[in-house]
Amino acid sequence: MKKFLAEFIGTFWLVLGGCGSAVLAAAFPELGIGLLGVSLAFGLTVLTIAYALGHISGAHLNPAVSVGLWAGGRFSTRELAPYIVAQVLGGLLAAVVLYVIATGNGSDIGGFAANGYGEHSPGGYSVQAALLTEIVMTFMFLIVILGATDQRAPAGFAGIAIGLALTLIHLISIPVTNTSVNPARSISQAVFVGDWALEQLWLFILAPVAGAILAGLVYRIFQKESNS
Amino acid sequence: MKKFLAEFIGTFWLVLGGCGSAVLAAAFPELGIGLLGVSLAFGLTVLTIAYALGHISGAHLNPAVSVGLWAGGRFSTRELAPYIVAQVLGGLLAAVVLYVIATGNGSDIGGFAANGYGEHSPGGYSVQAALLTEIVMTFMFLIVILGATDQRAPAGFAGIAIGLALTLIHLISIPVTNTSVNPARSISQAVFVGDWALEQLWLFILAPVAGAILAGLVYRIFQKESNS
Amino acid sequence: MKKFLAEFIGTFWLVLGGCGSAVLAAAFPELGIGLLGVSLAFGLTVLTIAYALGHISGAHLNPAVSVGLWAGGRFSTRELAPYIVAQVLGGLLAAVVLYVIATGNGSDIGGFAANGYGEHSPGGYSVQAALLTEIVMTFMFLIVILGATDQRAPAGFAGIAIGLALTLIHLISIPVTNTSVNPARSISQAVFVGDWALEQLWLFILAPVAGAILAGLVYRIFQKESNS
Amino acid sequence: MKKFLAEFIGTFWLVLGGCGSAVLAAAFPELGIGLLGVSLAFGLTVLTIAYALGHISGAHLNPAVSVGLWAGGRFSTRELAPYIVAQVLGGLLAAVVLYVIATGNGSDIGGFAANGYGEHSPGGYSVQAALLTEIVMTFMFLIVILGATDQRAPAGFAGIAIGLALTLIHLISIPVTNTSVNPARSISQAVFVGDWALEQLWLFILAPVAGAILAGLVYRIFQKESNS
Repeated sequence: MKKFLAEFIGTFWLVLGGCGSAVLAAAFPELGIGLLGVSLAFGLTVLTIAYALGHISGAHLNPAVSVGLWAGGRFSTRELAPYIVAQVLGGLLAAVVLYVIATGNGSDIGGFAANGYGEHSPGGYSVQAALLTEIVMTFMFLIVILGATDQRAPAGFAGIAIGLALTLIHLISIPVTNTSVNPARSISQAVFVGDWALEQLWLFILAPVAGAILAGLVYRIFQKESNS
Repeated sequence: MKKFLAEFIGTFWLVLGGCGSAVLAAAFPELGIGLLGVSLAFGLTVLTIAYALGHISGAHLNPAVSVGLWAGGRFSTRELAPYIVAQVLGGLLAAVVLYVIATGNGSDIGGFAANGYGEHSPGGYSVQAALLTEIVMTFMFLIVILGATDQRAPAGFAGIAIGLALTLIHLISIPVTNTSVNPARSISQAVFVGDWALEQLWLFILAPVAGAILAGLVYRIFQKESNS
Repeated sequence: MKKFLAEFIGTFWLVLGGCGSAVLAAAFPELGIGLLGVSLAFGLTVLTIAYALGHISGAHLNPAVSVGLWAGGRFSTRELAPYIVAQVLGGLLAAVVLYVIATGNGSDIGGFAANGYGEHSPGGYSVQAALLTEIVMTFMFLIVILGATDQRAPAGFAGIAIGLALTLIHLISIPVTNTSVNPARSISQAVFVGDWALEQLWLFILAPVAGAILAGLVYRIFQKESNS
Repeated sequence: MKKFLAEFIGTFWLVLGGCGSAVLAAAFPELGIGLLGVSLAFGLTVLTIAYALGHISGAHLNPAVSVGLWAGGRFSTRELAPYIVAQVLGGLLAAVVLYVIATGNGSDIGGFAANGYGEHSPGGYSVQAALLTEIVMTFMFLIVILGATDQRAPAGFAGIAIGLALTLIHLISIPVTNTSVNPARSISQAVFVGDWALEQLWLFILAPVAGAILAGLVYRIFQKESNS
């Protein structure tokens, strides 16, 4: 229950901070934070929660992360479903709060911070490019997560490495898909945008999960060889 | 007395660095640091003081932080008032220094870096949006502070997590309220701007304190359960 | 074999993250990350891999780094060739993936993120300026790497120092050469651009290696004197 | 001798990285790093050298830092002069290298990255504002340095806190004086610019040294009280 609350609050923060900075501050006239600021915000949600609540739940904040840790033999099957439920609910509450704030100056939410491909890709990238991007980015995200939390890595630094990995992923891929690598984040925004965002949601669930599982399997190679 | 001096110097630095970067550098022609630079500056004031003076006073630098730590059972009732006095005085001295520097090229201070809502919100957000934003942002700030300084968190990293949490909060919410989450910061600027800034000051005292107390109570849940 | 895989994945990430952010996001209309965002991305590829895979291979991710560590007496002659092969192959795979993504919105790759001098220098700098820049930047990169991983340096922090050193190097020198300091990164882009990029490739192999060897020799001075 | 070499290389890096990013990359067309990027670059020179060479010389890289540590009772009188000589020489060599690179595309160096006040202040700030700014900024820089390297502070983190303190100082004060807080940095640029830069150089030697000594005295208060 304590873990559930931590994942709920943590994913709430990830979506409110990441998508919130995108919706409220990215394109602020003259002084806006741009894609660089949004990338930093996403990463800092994870970095801050990793140190604040990591000792309680592990601070996954992302169904793909929970699945990837499970695939790598580092997370129990039994806890998978409750973690994912908490993450999706936390993301949804953040979307509600963000909706109330963002419409508080009379503007409508437009595309919110929903993920998309094709004509809904920020830079007009095809579904194939989007698929490849989300798989590879989530793969590398999990390689960093699994490696930096490995007992052979320097203790305490994982939160910095993992948070800044999410910043890096956004620096590369916002133009392609608006960057998901996190189904809970994608669901939270698609529900408010509806329409095309819901139609394209499958990619932002399937691709991150596929990339994460692949990383879990590669991590097992690193584990196995260290015993030989 | 040593703690009082540390909180005084620390809050002086928070206001001079955060508000100073906003007033002097945010909109510098062509090369200005924008909201991203201001967000970074606010966070770095806290990060730097956490490592420089944290071992002396705990580096609260913010009445809402002191109240939130107190609500979470981590700060004594006896020290609450002197800490808050030191913080407010440190912020005021910073505003004086900033006033002298900022007017040193013949410009007037305009709105300084005062916080506001409605027509004084940078992005024109309503009082309701401002209230919700300041409560939620301060709530999450204290969740990070209480969690990252918990004895179960990795030692030494709290200063990074807490400082960058303040950066993140600014990345999200400057367009809404110019971001307070800190009554000492808001008071220091409102005193110089007068007028509307003083009229709207209540929100930037009440909302941060309410959010901080709420976080203290949630933190107690995490504490309690860890004993069961 | 495990080390080879780690260098392969790590250099893949360095090129995909660094060059990918440059190609996809640097000049995104209105919100682009600019040279600052690209600099951050390059540094974060190294920072994240240092914590994720550093305990496996040392996370060189760069033939010049392997050579510099060897020149400083910190890396074996026997492992030099396989490390370099893994790095070059990882960089090439990243270029393939980046090519597929970047052309996924119908644009062509232009100069990709290739390094160049003279008329192919972003800021039109001469071959002499380029040569001096690449030698000095790689020299200082290796001074940081050799020093921060020295047993007298604080344990665990090397990944932060080294990753941010690469960010710093890019903040200075992208206008001069588009910043290499890494032959594997330069080769990966030149192969796709062909023509002038291949003709100028010699500089981005020779200069980084020369700077790295020089740093290895200076490091030996620091080592020697500490024994006297 | 080893310490001298470390201060020489480290200050070389501070000036080449900080002033170099300002001269070469700050105003690069469309993609320039701006004052935010320059601020980051200055801080990262210190952060990287702190971890690379801090265990050899303490990584002062700045005559005001050496004087401030001496005033705080943390640095010997005997080593003060050789440290300052090494720092000034390292800065001068960096200016030579930067001059060669920066003129390598046919442009002249203009004001280089020299510090100034009055009509040579980037934002037109008066000599009084400049004096106050440099004293206060150096004071706070030394407060962070003395505190973060105190034995009561968390071990290993000082390099992060001190480097990012220099970033913060630049985020605030580049518009006022182009930010010195470091006589070695100011001398290196003034020598190349000559004329007004040499005439105004006195301020960028006196003010940083005064602020540093003041911080050393305040630090002694924190020390004294901890014994009572």
